[in-house]
This record gives sequence, C-alpha cells and structure tokens, in this order.
Amino acid sequence: MAEKKKLVSEITSMDVDFAQWYTDIVKKAEMIDYSSVKGCVIMRPYAQALWENIQKTLDGMFKETGHENVAMPLFIPENLLQKEKDHVEGFAPEVAWVTHGGSEKLEERLCVRPTSETLFCEHYAKIVRSWRDLPKLYNQWCSVVRWEKTTRPFLRSREFWWQEGHTVHATEQEAREETMRMLNVYATFCEEYLAMPVLKGLKTDKERFAGAVETYTIEAMMHDGKALQSGTSHYFGDGFARAFDMQFADKNNTLQYMHQTSWGASTRLIGAIIMTHGDNEGLVLPPRIAPVQLVVIPVAAHKPGVTEKAQELLAAVKAAGIRAKIDLSDNSPGWKFAEYEMKGVPLRLEVGPRDIEQGQCVLVRRDTREKTVVSFAELATAVPALLEDIQRAMFERARRNREEHTYTAHSLDEMKQIAAAHTGFVKSMWCGELACEERVKEEAGMSSRCMPLEQENLGDVCPICGKPAKKMIVWGVAY
Amino acid sequence: MAEKKKLVSEITSMDVDFAQWYTDIVKKAEMIDYSSVKGCVIMRPYAQALWENIQKTLDGMFKETGHENVAMPLFIPENLLQKEKDHVEGFAPEVAWVTHGGSEKLEERLCVRPTSETLFCEHYAKIVRSWRDLPKLYNQWCSVVRWEKTTRPFLRSREFWWQEGHTVHATEQEAREETMRMLNVYATFCEEYLAMPVLKGLKTDKERFAGAVETYTIEAMMHDGKALQSGTSHYFGDGFARAFDMQFADKNNTLQYMHQTSWGASTRLIGAIIMTHGDNEGLVLPPRIAPVQLVVIPVAAHKPGVTEKAQELLAAVKAAGIRAKIDLSDNSPGWKFAEYEMKGVPLRLEVGPRDIEQGQCVLVRRDTREKTVVSFAELATAVPALLEDIQRAMFERARRNREEHTYTAHSLDEMKQIAAAHTGFVKSMWCGELACEERVKEEAGMSSRCMPLEQENLGDVCPICGKPAKKMIVWGVAY
Repeated sequence: MAEKKKLVSEITSMDVDFAQWYTDIVKKAEMIDYSSVKGCVIMRPYAQALWENIQKTLDGMFKETGHENVAMPLFIPENLLQKEKDHVEGFAPEVAWVTHGGSEKLEERLCVRPTSETLFCEHYAKIVRSWRDLPKLYNQWCSVVRWEKTTRPFLRSREFWWQEGHTVHATEQEAREETMRMLNVYATFCEEYLAMPVLKGLKTDKERFAGAVETYTIEAMMHDGKALQSGTSHYFGDGFARAFDMQFADKNNTLQYMHQTSWGASTRLIGAIIMTHGDNEGLVLPPRIAPVQLVVIPVAAHKPGVTEKAQELLAAVKAAGIRAKIDLSDNSPGWKFAEYEMKGVPLRLEVGPRDIEQGQCVLVRRDTREKTVVSFAELATAVPALLEDIQRAMFERARRNREEHTYTAHSLDEMKQIAAAHTGFVKSMWCGELACEERVKEEAGMSSRCMPLEQENLGDVCPICGKPAKKMIVWGVAY
Repeated sequence: MAEKKKLVSEITSMDVDFAQWYTDIVKKAEMIDYSSVKGCVIMRPYAQALWENIQKTLDGMFKETGHENVAMPLFIPENLLQKEKDHVEGFAPEVAWVTHGGSEKLEERLCVRPTSETLFCEHYAKIVRSWRDLPKLYNQWCSVVRWEKTTRPFLRSREFWWQEGHTVHATEQEAREETMRMLNVYATFCEEYLAMPVLKGLKTDKERFAGAVETYTIEAMMHDGKALQSGTSHYFGDGFARAFDMQFADKNNTLQYMHQTSWGASTRLIGAIIMTHGDNEGLVLPPRIAPVQLVVIPVAAHKPGVTEKAQELLAAVKAAGIRAKIDLSDNSPGWKFAEYEMKGVPLRLEVGPRDIEQGQCVLVRRDTREKTVVSFAELATAVPALLEDIQRAMFERARRNREEHTYTAHSLDEMKQIAAAHTGFVKSMWCGELACEERVKEEAGMSSRCMPLEQENLGDVCPICGKPAKKMIVWGVAY
C-alpha cells in the first residue's frame, strides 16, 4: 500500500491542476518522452501501440469505403506550396525550411510538409486524364511538421503523426458526399472505439482550413469542459484544381476541373482519450482500442501452483481473443495494481491460493474499480462481456459529462455569465457575421466550435447583434 | 491482341537495356511517380500495398522476437549528430539541413534524420537506469533522408521508407546474439516471403556502417548478376554508449556501458523483388507478398450468367483466404490479361460461357504462363496449392540463377577475366587487407559484398597479394 501510494502520489490531482494532471499521466504512463529536439516528442511503446490500434481500425474503415494508401514525399518545393494563395498564407508562417543538402545550398528551398494538398494536386494533375480515372480516393499515414510556438504532447507539437485523405471527383455532388462520408467515419470511430461522443458540424469561415470552401469538424468535450477538435473533413470545390490545372475529359470529351476533398485525424486522438476518460489514478483506456485489455496478476505467486494457474488463465483469456498479458515480475501485487491502473488497462485479473481452492478468480474493472468473482469455467465468456460493458459505460459517462456541461444562451450577457462560471459548450443562435464571432471571443473568451449538423431553433435573432439569426452555433474554450 | 501488344511494347526488353527495363516496369506497373521534389518518389497505391504487406509480415516477426515499436522525431540537432565521431563523418556529407522555422532562423541547425542512432542513444541514456530495464528492443517504421546525387526508384532515393531497429543490452554476448537474430529474421523473410535467396555474411571494414564494430548483410543477386544489399544488422559494441554516456547499474550496482545493435531493411526490397523475378511482360510477384494473388477475368462477359458466375468464383476464392479481385471494366480480355501480367498478379482466372457449361475455369500462372483447367468444385483447394507451387518455383529459379552466376577465382587475373565476361558473385580467399580490396575494385571493377557466414576453403593464400588468406570473400558489382 505504501508502494502504491508512492507511485500514484506522483500524479497531480485533476481537480487541483488539470494541465499538470495531463502532463503527469503522459509521462508516468510512459506514453511520451521529450528529446533534445524542441517541441517534438518521442512516442514510447505504449503510446505507439495505442496509435497502431487506432491506425489499424481507421485504416480498415478507409479501405472499406474504397480508399487506397500512398506515400508522398516529405518535402514541398517553395513554388509548389505557393500555388494556392489562401493555402500558402495559412501555412507558410509555420513551416520548417530545408535550405541545404549536404554541404550545398539548395537552388530552391523545400518546406517540410505541414499537410500535403499541394503534392496530391500535382500528382492528380498528372495521372488523371478522363472521367474513367475518377474518383481517386487516396490516403497517407505519415508525420507532418508545423513550427508551433507553444507545444503540448499529443495536442500540439511541431511534429505529429496523422493520416491525410485526399480525393478528387468528377462532380461537386460526389465530392460533397465524400466530405460527409469521412466526417461520419471519424464520428463513428470516435464513438464506437474511443467511447467518445462527438459533435458534428460546420466550421465558420474564420475557422475554416486554409484553401477550403467548407470545413466540417467533430468536436469532443474533455473532462474539464474544454473542446478538442478531433478530426476534420474539408470540401475544396475546384479551388485547388484551378490553381494546379487539374482537369479531366468528361463523357462528352469536354475538359472539366476536378472537385476535391481532404480529411485528417491525428495523434491528438490520444490526448482526447486521456482527457475524456482518465482519472486521478491515471489512464483509463476504452477496451476496444487498449493495447492490453486484461492483465493477469498472481497473488502470493511463490505459493505452489499459483503461477501455473495464472498462466493457464492467461491462455484461456487469450484463446477467447482478448489482448492479455501477465506480470510475473518480482514487484509486489500492490505495486502492480497501481502500475496497470496508471496505464489504464481495462481489466485486472487477480488469482491467489485461496481463489484456486475455490476454482475462481477476481476481475477488477479499471473504470469503476468494481470487483467480480468469476469461476474458471465462466472466464472465457465473462471477460468479453465485461469489456463490452466497460466500453458502453465509458461512452455513457462521457456523454453525461458533455450533457452536464452544455448550456444555452440567449444573450451576450448570458454567454459571459456562463463562461465566467463554467467551461463547456454554449449553444446560441448566430447571424453568421465575423464581427459577432469576434465579439464572443473578446468578451466571453470563447471561440466558435461549429454549427452542428443537428440544428435546434433557439430563437430568431442573433443574441450578439440582434439581427436575424441564420444558424445555431456552439461556442467553447478549445485546446 | 493489338491492344496487348501496345501495352507490352512500351517495356524495353531486359536483354536490350536492363536499366531501362527496370524503369519502364516501375512506371508502367504504376508503382511510382516522380514529383517536383528532385530525387524523391511517390509510392503509388500498388507499391504502397506491396510495402504494407512487407511491413505487416516483418513487423509480426519483430514482435514475435520481443520488439516494440516507437516513433522518434524526424529531426536531429546538429550537436547530437556530432557526438559519435565516425557516425557523423559517415552521414554529415549527405544530410538535408533545416535552418528556418517559419520566418525565424533556428539557433541550431537540425538535420532531417538519415538514420536515428543518435536519437535512440539519447533516449536510452535517459530511460535505462539498471539491469532490470534491459534489454530495450525498439523498432520504428519511418522514412529517412540522404541527399544522394544520383537516384533510382526504390534503389537509391533522397527519401526512402524503412524500419530501423535499435536495441541495448546488458552484455556483449546478448547484443551479438541480437545482431545475428535479426540478420536471420531478414534472411528468412527474403527467402520465405520474397522467394529470394540471400547470402549472409560480414562486411569488410571498408563497407561497414559508420560507427559500427561489425556490419552483417544479406546480399541478393538480381537477374543481371548484380548484387543488391537487402538488409543489414550492426553490432555497435559500446562505442555509441561511451559517446552518449549510456550507463546502467549492473546486479552488483556497478555502472556499466550498454551494448548496442541496429538493423534495417527498406523499400529497396521492392526493387529487389522486381529485379529478381520480373520478366519482359512486367512484374512477377511472389504469391505470399502480392497485394492481389488472383484476378478473375470474365470472358464474353456480356453473355448471360458469365459475370454472375465470375463473381461467384471470386467469392469462393476469397472464402479460401486468397487476396483476390475481379476486373469487370469494359476493357477487352486481352487488354486485361496484359495489364495483370504487367502488375505481376500470380494467378489469373478466366471463365467464359463454354467453361460454365463444362463446370470449369482456367487458371493461368504468371511465372510460367502454364494453364490449368480446374472444375468449380476443386477451385478452393486448387488455388492455394498452385500459389504455393508458384512461390516454391520462383525461389528455385532465383536460386538457380544465383548458382549459374557464381564463380570461383584463384588469382587476380582470373577475377579480371571473370568480371570482363560475366556479372555475378566471384568467390575468392582474402588476406583481410584494405589494399587488396581496393585493388580488386580498381582492376576488376568489383566491390566486396561480404565474407559469407558459411565459409569454404578455396586455398591458403590471398590471390591478390599472395600473403596468407584469412577468409573467403565474395566480390560483385552492386546496386
């Protein structure tokens, strides 16, 4: 118990300092380490295993919807980045520039990709000739670099890992459908695998991706009530197509510009998992995405037969398709309990001499700490059922947290009062004007998160300026 | 037939110009495209799918041998790269330098990683405290950058994709065992999955990796008799450990330096597959690694029932665990035959109205063009058996090619004569001196490939200088 305390006491309580709690978890659960490259992190094995599970699942969903993976170069020549005006304005201030190769100065600077629209555009302009070549539905998994001033592990770093989908279509309608299809893929993934409810909506012009006609987003709410943009899907129209001369011959042999989308999700999702589900003992991982779903911990392992039985149970659980491991190190059981709580392993299986006599073991849930005694015979069915139960309960708790921190405002004063007392989502009507959006930011300290696809009518006028309202919008404080 | 000719005629015959044949295949099979980033390529979906199959298989082998994946930063600060003297001398001349972030000049230049030893060293120095923390067996999948002057797709490009394993151990013996274990993993993978026999051996001091004590290699022989280094495994001793102050407390609580290895294989393997198995019709892919193992092509697809039966057969083959697809486009069967031959799909299934009447279809092997008539009932067992047969036959042909192009020399004159008449592996004894190695390069135009682990005694003296021989060595012309 003293040992347990020691390990756990190194995490700051989330009620005392949420930001410090987050940083502590990220370090103590051995997810990241800092390197001497400022603003860049090392993904340690546990975070990388979690990311690989995210990748595997999302990649499967992309392939099911007809997408293929490619790999584009890491670099973008300066003149290529500059071809689309809005895009370069958005990204140029935060890119890293390669100026020398070996000892020679390059004739043209290369930026390290902050995102790869320009490379995909150049490629599509070359390989698409006719309507028969469309659509092209490509994706790549890679890291990108944005020279941010302030960084936080997973949430904002100079290098981060992501996937970026880039598609071209023969018609606007197909491209718009693709934009929504991928938004829905992200939402489904977050809700079903990460147990994280998300709000789907359209970004305002101010928050739109550089070069896009429309940017859709999924917004999640963290424990502290702040919003985390967790994935975006952009409809580009033919803006890039005109800048990059991306034309194809349609069925009447007439040249047309392609219609384009892009969409991305990143290692930010790991930050989202931590801040949606974590508690003061550490990580709490959703079973469907956890690298280890169950850990077997023998109690009084030195007693005859205990280790053997523990290994037998491990084998039974693995045979039921569960990602499980056993800890046979010479640390005390208490130390191990704390360690796997810190790492958020959804289920712990304890088995000792007395359990063995009675033909049973104890399963402890990470999320509620609830204990269930299970007979050896029932183990292979009880574990998958419990894991599904945990998954459901975690989603439900996150949904309830979001509900409890969602407010409605009918005036700017009300917005300011809510923002002063709480952090959460604040719904209101909006006229659609930038001036009102900026006023909410200045006076209530909240940015627009999105105009939800599921609209509600909260009134007829914009509560900021009093002009006719166009949309319901959600405001919040964002990571 | 005219269509088929048209497609195929665009590949140069390998007997006329092997290099042009290679370039043609790489383009016509839609494996790569060039971008405006000089010396960097785009991995198109077909090459990327092949690489993902390679990754999945190798990654499984790494995990079975206890390795974990991590992700290190893309950048290395200049002072970190310089810590190990031999290493920086080897790599500094060919790295790309980032000098600016956004509009600001960096205080210290960052190189884009050419390989990540230095980053792993810094990390291990931080996270390993005692013998209990060892070994650390890490790997990462990423791309690296080397500013090469002349480039060729897959074989040498400024950016390439690879994996790099980096491990630290408590003892020299464990590190040496790891070095050999991973060399054997590579050899097993190449032989069993890529159907490519490899020669395992030790590199000479001249050819050693910058900073290593010993570099082991697997060398494959291409169609044209040239050698392709296909994977390397390095034993570092404690050289990096001393440079990076990587110490741990042993069981007696005495500080010791760690013993280290690294090992890597890259998208070069795709080049190796092309040049080991390809022919004048295009790619020939080993079934175990092919993205598509079988393609169904309906003949006279407009006739009633043909498309339906073709799809039924596709489903049957897929249900047998085969990666299969169907081509229902309106191209002619002849065009389709040529297209999938170009792409090296191991088996083609043809089915037309007459076949359906007789309850059978035709399977055509890509490697030998042999046709087999198979009844519908036998299909699900015939296909996996045929694929295994193709895999074996491809390995056997590659082995025979290597045997036919392996020579033995007992004098420098003999070496020169062989090299003038043939391209292949030339075995000889060697005294171990750099002077003799350089003389073979100058006078016979061959570099040392490796000192094979399986040694033969071809004589007692070095055929170049006449001094006592130490080892048998293999010479060749390398990619």
